Amino acid sequence: MDPRAARARARAGATGPTAGWAPGHTQANLVSVPADWAYDVLLFCTRNPRPCPVLDVTDPGSWRTALAPDADLRTDIPRYRVWEHGRLVDEPTDVTPYWRGDLVSFLIGCSFTFEGALAEAGVPLRHVEQGRNVSMYVTRRACRPAGRLHGPMVVSMRPVPAALVSTARRISGLLPAVHGAPVHEGDPAGLGIRDLSRPDFGDPVVAEPGDVPVFWACGVTPQAAVMASRPPFAITHAPGRMLVTDVRDSEYRVGD
Amino acid sequence: MDPRAARARARAGATGPTAGWAPGHTQANLVSVPADWAYDVLLFCTRNPRPCPVLDVTDPGSWRTALAPDADLRTDIPRYRVWEHGRLVDEPTDVTPYWRGDLVSFLIGCSFTFEGALAEAGVPLRHVEQGRNVSMYVTRRACRPAGRLHGPMVVSMRPVPAALVSTARRISGLLPAVHGAPVHEGDPAGLGIRDLSRPDFGDPVVAEPGDVPVFWACGVTPQAAVMASRPPFAITHAPGRMLVTDVRDSEYRVGD
Repeated sequence: MDPRAARARARAGATGPTAGWAPGHTQANLVSVPADWAYDVLLFCTRNPRPCPVLDVTDPGSWRTALAPDADLRTDIPRYRVWEHGRLVDEPTDVTPYWRGDLVSFLIGCSFTFEGALAEAGVPLRHVEQGRNVSMYVTRRACRPAGRLHGPMVVSMRPVPAALVSTARRISGLLPAVHGAPVHEGDPAGLGIRDLSRPDFGDPVVAEPGDVPVFWACGVTPQAAVMASRPPFAITHAPGRMLVTDVRDSEYRVGD
Repeated sequence: MDPRAARARARAGATGPTAGWAPGHTQANLVSVPADWAYDVLLFCTRNPRPCPVLDVTDPGSWRTALAPDADLRTDIPRYRVWEHGRLVDEPTDVTPYWRGDLVSFLIGCSFTFEGALAEAGVPLRHVEQGRNVSMYVTRRACRPAGRLHGPMVVSMRPVPAALVSTARRISGLLPAVHGAPVHEGDPAGLGIRDLSRPDFGDPVVAEPGDVPVFWACGVTPQAAVMASRPPFAITHAPGRMLVTDVRDSEYRVGD
């Protein structure tokens, strides 16, 4: 499946999650806000580059992105979330009816981007093996606030065999534009997570014996900031349902 | 010289350049604009991360930065440039008289940050050997515009022995927050640079036999955008005269 086919599949109604779609191509989180909130969102992302690495920002009203020139941001994500004053009001597969001329859209790096590189290096992806969405958790680590925007860091978790944790750390670390190295390894309590079997977003993923939970900063973080900071209106992707872009993962790898 | 001593030296009137001050500590470019231009500047930086990697953004009016909590952005840079409608109107060593309550300041990564790592790896730094400021050039490569902001990419150039170019590329590539890998190596004409002996900023630097000119994206780029885009008011550092921060260079290295 190439990126164009992946987006066509989303447009035709497939609801994801998108992990494993169009391997080798970067996937992106979406958050769209009215233009008068755009500076706060961009500053929030700049001040919190690990969870919120910005890959592209649109001009107001535009549903086009440089990351995938023929994509339509209103239809090409498998499922969206629509927010009013921080409250989830709809989860449609098409946000054309909700679109506004003043919306500025932020495309934010996604950890799915380094999963191909992890798999190539022999790091098993338990959620893919189990046919589930990755587990995501709201932590008690606060992001650095920006203007009216504040909120906790959200992380994704992958169980990794202990002997492969350093490999996973090294490989993801070379992709800082898509969250980079883990923010935490081991005891979930270090991030204030009580129960790994009850993720805040996504599905529970079963660890194999000898696996260590490894946590990466997650692009759902801006969504948590929208929930906490209550802008009058926002559109985001639904967790795990990403925009598949035309950009090769290798474009974001440093140190080659 | 530690970073605090370096800033005290600037505050006391030393005019730089700052290459080699407080080795191992990150130096930063400054651009301050009125708040109603801040979104355009931040978006310009986001869209042009190679020349404009943002390390910190202040709140309006604040002269404090998280990169050096006791620094005063109005006095601790050796020399400033003051701009009105894109025209250079002053080059003071202290901008306290020019400061305004609506100024938002951007601290942008500087290639001096990777010079320590280059030197450690045996890559000679000709401008340091020759006691000169690094050579900087305006290229004919346009940055991606953002709102009212547009302009050409500026680069710094270091002559590197041919056998060490790949080392220089690899080492700087691990520091994407301070411009990362070179944007060009070899023939200056590839960037539209006519004469290496006549830099647009900084000093001419003499190459040794067998050296290849290596070009990195440069944090003077926002200054070129100010010149081209003519915001009513702006303050920048003078090229080569940076803010010495408390942050260790190693903080910005990926892949460790």
